[in-house]
Amino acid sequence: MTEPLKTLSEHGCFGGVQTFYQHDSREIGLPMKFSVYLPPQANHGRVPALLYLAGLTCNEETFMTKAGAQQYAAQHGLALIAPDTGPRGANVPGETDDWDFGLAASFYIDATEAPWSTHYRMESYLTKELLPAIASELPIDPQRVGIFGHSMGGHGALTLALKHPGLFKSVSAFAPICAPTQCGWGQKAFSGYLGADNTDWPKHDAVFLMAAKTSAPYPGGILIDQGLADKFLAAQLNPHIFEAACQAVGQPLIVRRHMGYDHGYYFITTFMAEHIAFHSQALQGN
Amino acid sequence: MTEPLKTLSEHGCFGGVQTFYQHDSREIGLPMKFSVYLPPQANHGRVPALLYLAGLTCNEETFMTKAGAQQYAAQHGLALIAPDTGPRGANVPGETDDWDFGLAASFYIDATEAPWSTHYRMESYLTKELLPAIASELPIDPQRVGIFGHSMGGHGALTLALKHPGLFKSVSAFAPICAPTQCGWGQKAFSGYLGADNTDWPKHDAVFLMAAKTSAPYPGGILIDQGLADKFLAAQLNPHIFEAACQAVGQPLIVRRHMGYDHGYYFITTFMAEHIAFHSQALQGN
Repeated sequence: MTEPLKTLSEHGCFGGVQTFYQHDSREIGLPMKFSVYLPPQANHGRVPALLYLAGLTCNEETFMTKAGAQQYAAQHGLALIAPDTGPRGANVPGETDDWDFGLAASFYIDATEAPWSTHYRMESYLTKELLPAIASELPIDPQRVGIFGHSMGGHGALTLALKHPGLFKSVSAFAPICAPTQCGWGQKAFSGYLGADNTDWPKHDAVFLMAAKTSAPYPGGILIDQGLADKFLAAQLNPHIFEAACQAVGQPLIVRRHMGYDHGYYFITTFMAEHIAFHSQALQGN
Repeated sequence: MTEPLKTLSEHGCFGGVQTFYQHDSREIGLPMKFSVYLPPQANHGRVPALLYLAGLTCNEETFMTKAGAQQYAAQHGLALIAPDTGPRGANVPGETDDWDFGLAASFYIDATEAPWSTHYRMESYLTKELLPAIASELPIDPQRVGIFGHSMGGHGALTLALKHPGLFKSVSAFAPICAPTQCGWGQKAFSGYLGADNTDWPKHDAVFLMAAKTSAPYPGGILIDQGLADKFLAAQLNPHIFEAACQAVGQPLIVRRHMGYDHGYYFITTFMAEHIAFHSQALQGN
């Protein structure tokens, strides 16, 4: 059973409707907020949808206010779905001590380590609860869902796509954390959520997930944009490691590196049109 | 003498650069922040510029993060300038008591009533200091400047354009406060900044400023977009009064009323492309 969606606010936007929702999440065990943009085409039937995962410190509003994606979603007839970046109100001790772990820093995995494992279950929430709940109440087509994200959310997009290729038919990312087991952000998060024993860490690392494939899971390609003025590029993001992993299994990958662009939404919005078009092509052939 | 501009941050965006600045303002008597988007065309010479005035509670960042204007500015080769919505740090007693008066609620006028009159001098700041300072340090053409804004900033755009038609060659607005002397927000602000004696209030009211003209000050027209789901429309905005004033003096005015759109940035971003195109046509003929 899914709990009903409660509408918090709705706003006309590019001929469609931008809505903010809350529901009681079974998987998280707490109320969760999320936002959906329905393009005008959704008035006439189910439309493909893109799930966007935001980065550290963000929430369900960040993408919808800063990325400028709605206009392209309206052009292509795609819905946009933006969940929050983790549970709110879990009240785990230490949850707010750091900006890169705990609150708004779920890394979109199911924690196995207590006390995080009670509420920090974002992978199950997104794949087993949120998408079905939305598909049951809103005119989106659950057979045509793509996933993308930024930074921590780029890690989330790549890993969830590789874990659930039947659920997500297309994937792209902006400045993703490509190899979390090999960077400080990822090691900190996985130590906390999965435990110091790193045996299971590779199950949540896009590089290992890709390396375990015997053929390209996304034969239509994966798109990554990366700014070269991104201060996190060298220490945290490591797109070159993911590139090598893709090459080894024959996974087509386009990594576009851009001079003068940093890690923020002024970078993301610049290349948003091409990500939406990329997903639209994969999900509906135009 | 103008004080030098201090760069706080800069970000690549649509081939141009989004920069946040601070300078010590002579007119305000305090440091002021503002933001500028320079399109790629600014690398090759001076470009026309649009001054955007934001609404109540906003700051110099709001427009640049939420309005999605940079892509259109890049297409047309226009710079965008967004000042803060009022002095910060004036520490006037009562300044933060209300969200619609005092801090971030300057109404873009020069206050005449003590203690506001010391720092709340936004009209002089914008027209005599900010624009000259920017033109002296950045490649914008001070002879081709347009003005637009939202809500309180729409009032600011209309009134500053009507007071300074030589400075602003084009004007448009999103959901502007059209007749401040006839609505609660305006009456509260003018009482505080200008005094209870309302003799001088009409000098800062777009309806009276327009009515005082003997011919159309903007023969190319004025553009206003207004959402019909805007909860402030009936009590605060009064576009119909401004329409009548324009008609009386032969000022061409297009007021577009949109079903389903509210007062926020999801509305503004929907119609941003057409405002930028409108100003571009007026400032550079294409």
